[in-house]
This record gives sequence, C-alpha cells and structure tokens, in this order.
Amino acid sequence: MVIRSAMLSAFPVLYLWLPEIRDSGQLLSLNRASNRHFANCLPFFWMAFPQCGLALKVVSNPPGMIASRSKCLQEDTTMKIATLNYEGAPRLGLLSDDEALIHIAPSGWSYLETVLAGDRVSELADACRGSGLTIQTDQAELLPVVTAPKRIVCIGRNYPKIHPVDGELPPPTDIGLFMKLPGVLIGHGAPLKKPSESDTYDYEGEITLIIGKKTGKLDPKDAWSVVAGITAMNDGSVRGWQKHSVDAGKNFRQSGSLGPWMTTLDAMPQPSGDWRILTKVNGEVAQDGPASDMYFDIPTILAYITSFTDLEPGDVISTGSPEGSGGGRTPQRFLKNGDEVAVTITGVGTLKNRVVAG
Amino acid sequence: MVIRSAMLSAFPVLYLWLPEIRDSGQLLSLNRASNRHFANCLPFFWMAFPQCGLALKVVSNPPGMIASRSKCLQEDTTMKIATLNYEGAPRLGLLSDDEALIHIAPSGWSYLETVLAGDRVSELADACRGSGLTIQTDQAELLPVVTAPKRIVCIGRNYPKIHPVDGELPPPTDIGLFMKLPGVLIGHGAPLKKPSESDTYDYEGEITLIIGKKTGKLDPKDAWSVVAGITAMNDGSVRGWQKHSVDAGKNFRQSGSLGPWMTTLDAMPQPSGDWRILTKVNGEVAQDGPASDMYFDIPTILAYITSFTDLEPGDVISTGSPEGSGGGRTPQRFLKNGDEVAVTITGVGTLKNRVVAG
Repeated sequence: MVIRSAMLSAFPVLYLWLPEIRDSGQLLSLNRASNRHFANCLPFFWMAFPQCGLALKVVSNPPGMIASRSKCLQEDTTMKIATLNYEGAPRLGLLSDDEALIHIAPSGWSYLETVLAGDRVSELADACRGSGLTIQTDQAELLPVVTAPKRIVCIGRNYPKIHPVDGELPPPTDIGLFMKLPGVLIGHGAPLKKPSESDTYDYEGEITLIIGKKTGKLDPKDAWSVVAGITAMNDGSVRGWQKHSVDAGKNFRQSGSLGPWMTTLDAMPQPSGDWRILTKVNGEVAQDGPASDMYFDIPTILAYITSFTDLEPGDVISTGSPEGSGGGRTPQRFLKNGDEVAVTITGVGTLKNRVVAG
Repeated sequence: MVIRSAMLSAFPVLYLWLPEIRDSGQLLSLNRASNRHFANCLPFFWMAFPQCGLALKVVSNPPGMIASRSKCLQEDTTMKIATLNYEGAPRLGLLSDDEALIHIAPSGWSYLETVLAGDRVSELADACRGSGLTIQTDQAELLPVVTAPKRIVCIGRNYPKIHPVDGELPPPTDIGLFMKLPGVLIGHGAPLKKPSESDTYDYEGEITLIIGKKTGKLDPKDAWSVVAGITAMNDGSVRGWQKHSVDAGKNFRQSGSLGPWMTTLDAMPQPSGDWRILTKVNGEVAQDGPASDMYFDIPTILAYITSFTDLEPGDVISTGSPEGSGGGRTPQRFLKNGDEVAVTITGVGTLKNRVVAG
C-alpha cells in the first residue's frame, strides 16, 4: 500500500520530466481544455486512472499541444505525413483527416527518409495514431517534410510560359534541371529570407516528388513505383543571380520552402494530370496550372534523372512551375518583405510562408 | 607463471581475430618482409616482446599492409590525409613523406568532415603515426578524401580557354557554378564510368578546396581561414548532356574523381598562384596551367559562394579547369574505354583513374 501510494505520488513528477513518459499518452494536458479531443477522451482517462486524480500539466508542452488516449484517434485514416520540430528535434507526425491536428509519432520516429528506406510508412502511421500525443496543426513548427535529403533535383522549364529570366522561348527539346543545397529549403510557416543581394526575388509553386525506394536507371513505365508521395515546393529564385548560373539563383539560404507535408502516392487523387498548382501572393492568384500541362511528365522526368544518378529514399524531385512567376509578368513583380506566398497542390495542402529581410 | 604462459599463447590468436588488437601496433606482419620499415622496426619489436617470438601473421591484412611499432613512424611529418577502404568501411590515414605508405588511423577515425568539425587534424595525424598500422599506398583502395560531403560546388569557366561546350567566349563578368550529387565522385584508382548515353565524355583537372570550418558570408580577406586543405578533382563531364543543363552533364554516376588525398593548407607551397594543374591522358600532357590564370581567385570564389550558402566542414569547392579538355580541342577528342586520366596538383599529388564502360 505504501509502495502504491509512492508510485501515484511520483507519477506526475516523472511525467513533467521524462519525455518518454510524456509521450506515452497516459495523461492529459489541460492547457487547451477547450479542445474537442479533450472532452472525448476524458472517460478513457478516468477508466484508466480512477484513483489518480487529474495531473495538472503546466510546463513543457508548446501551446496547442495535447496528449490524449490513442483510441480517440483511431478514426483518422489520412496518409499525410509531416515533420515537425518537437522539443528541439525533428519528429514525424500524421495529419488528421481534417488537417486540424497532427498525431505526433513516439520518440525514435524522426526522419522520413529512414521510414521510407525501411518501408515502414504504415507502421509509422499506426505509431502516430497510437502515440496519444497531438498538436494543433496551426500551432506546430513544421520542418521540410524531408529534413536532410541527399539530393534535391529541380526541373527547369516544364510548362508553357514566358520564362522569368529568358522571356519567350520555343518548347524545350530536352529536360533542363538544377539542384538545391542543404539550408535552402524551410518548412511551412517559417520565414522566407529575401536576399539582400538582389531585388529580383521570385516565387515558383511546384508539384514535388518524395522518392521512396533506392533506384538505378528507371524505365518510364516503372517510374511511379519509386515515388513515395507528393508535396509542394516554393522554388524561391533570385532571377538576377540565375543569370550568373541557374544554381546560384536557386540556392540562397532559406529562400525556398517544402511542405507543408507529404501525401502518400496511394492517397493522391487520380489521374495525376489533374493535380493543380495554385499559387497565391498576398491572397491573389498568381499561378494556376494542371500537371497535364507539363512538357515532360513525371515518368519521363524520373527516367531522365536516373539515367545519370541513382535516387534514394527521401530524395526530392521538383517538377517545374507553370506560368505566373513575378519575373515572367509584364511589368515584372518581384517579392517584397512582408509578402505572403501560398502554394496549394491538389491532394496535398497549402504551403504558406511570409517573406522577411534576409 | 601459468597465467603468463597462457597470455603469451593467446596473444597471436587474439591478434589474428580482433581488429582492435591488430590496430594497436604491437606485432609485425611478415607478408611484406622486404619493406624498408620492417628492418627498421625489428629492434623495437624484440625490445618490447623478447619472450614472445615472432607471431606469423598470415591472414586478414590485405596485400601490402604491414603493422609496425609507432615509434618507427614518428619521422614522417607530412600533412597529407587520405580516406581508404579498410575492412569494408572508410578509415582515415596519413601519407608518409615519400607518399609510399599510408599510416592508417585507429578504429573510430573514419570521416574527414568529422575530424575537421572537431578541429582535430593534428590529433588525427598523431593517431595515425601512433597506430602502427601501415599500408603501401599503391595497395590501398583510396576513397574520395571526403566520402559524403554535404555540398560539392564547382566553378565553371575560370580560365582563359576555348570552352568545351560553348567555344570561344569573352571573359565572364560573373562567376558561374554548378553542383555535384552524391555518387558522382570516386577515389584515386577506382574506375571512371564512361556513360553509355553519350560519346562526349570528357576530363577536367581542377584544384579543389576542402572546407574546414562552418561559415556564413565571408569577406575575401578572411576566406582562406575556412580552407582546411587542397585536393584534386577530375570533373568528369558529359558534354552532350551539358547542353541540356550543366548539372545533368556533370552528374553521371562515378564519372568524376576526387583525391588522391588532401594536403593541409599550411603544408601547401606558397604563393597559391603558383599551384599548377597538370592533366595527362594516357601519359600525354593535356592540361597545364597555374592557379594565377584563374579569372576569379579562391578568396573571390569563397566570398561569392558564401553570399548565398553557408559552408560546412568537408564541403568541396572546385575552382575550374584550364585550357585543354577534349571538348575544347580541334578536332574534339573525348575519352574512350581504357584511357587513363592523371591530374597532378602542385603540393598534393596525382589523382589517376582509368575509364571503363559505364
């Protein structure tokens, strides 16, 4: 009896200090008591700990984060996977069907590329649903859905448009591509840095592939088999520096974004040609085009890229941007500090970032 | 006494099976008994183990590898650091002054980028000299001196020449650059893969920087402070695909090489403008130019690159190639299977690879 009392007394203290216990979903936070899940979950809590009372959790969780019993969350079947900053480190999560909540994975599920390499996406989803730890999506600090891809390869001209650097051009005969370095892409909601070096900072909304399997040369007919899912990219571009070299203009630190999350390929609507890119700047439509407008479709792109390089789980392939970037307008209209760029991809969601001085 | 006898009996067995003991440098291999170090080291061996006899080591070490007492090797003061394949994994090593031997680092010293990040180059050199494990350089399987750099950034036109893709051009007004992906660069001695996709596979000998410190924007006057050392690159280039995009032509799998090792900057001859690139194809001089011919010198390059991206220890920056690539010749002369390309950089050494069908 003494031991039992001691355990009950110790439990709230342990909960406050040990992440493993906090993540186990056996207690409830009260810092968002109005959350709809809170009311739903209370009966489960009392069934589990009738003798325990309600531990008031007053520290550690960021605003919007709740812990709730896993059974409350089994209803969600979506396959939208996010990476968020959880206690200073990357952690994977699964979006609720209404995208209002993210079910946070237990400790140890940090990197999408590792999950993909182990073919453990379903296991991740189950782990998220069962973790009992949830955050409101609009309160989460989202990271690029792959935080450290080995390769970020982007296709250049792939839609009919006035080119934002080169003006009017005939359709390309070959795929053109460029690469992005680590440190260029930020997550949804983080500030885009407008480089001080140039006033030609521009947006490009794009449909972006996350590779799920290691692969060598691909035949176009097999190419979809290596795609794990789809996300959005704002391929931030400094047009003045693209004139030096495409790679220079495309690689300013924190000048582009990737996210908000990845929708697994099997959860994307079909046919893929109907996927649309809708880019808004300060709420006004700037780009709106379907994937069917691509000069080179996704299987053709993957076959081309794998003719020279292997691809690995977590690699990022972006497929080009339709008409409507600032550099292709007359007159040109580049991004200013304070502008908000929102890229929506059918079946994925909206990647939104605000521009700040770099 | 029984215990002492048992220990002495067990020692050769342990030596054959445990890498940690093999690496401790307390026994001598006889598989290269003619090696000059062997004779030098024998007296030390007998002083250390007068009662032990000579353990014959007949398995496990690759040809050319010897283990010898560390004191024999303290004479070498060179600061040429190599990465080699040791028992299936990367391991760092230190070249002897005559480059004939590599003193292999003890277990745990695997990645140059980690050593640089920890500012532990001197410690690495001491560990190599003291390990007692040595391999003949021509028997070592050398890897790219940084095996997994986060960034490989290469400067395009940086010497007066007939451009191998674009022909005669005025001097550039801005730096042009491109990037290389993981899987493109091989080490000294490994086979260069001539892509089956094109008959325009070409060589470019280059002076290449290894970054030693994490850095943001650099002023040119401070730029040398982030350079850990110098190596050579053969920037293998598929000219036909460079016409699609520079990055495509520069990123065929195993089409370029990096090495043979890095010479630390403080061990490089000065002034840096006197460093020469000498490229030979099948023993015939193809390129021969000094760094002083660069349009953009190394501090200018580093200031330019860091204006858009941070750099980190182990990052690789290649500085362009002088006149003489196959694509810039009249008539053009591209690489064929069986060709041998050797790139020599003053103060570093010679990076040599043979071309095979890709």
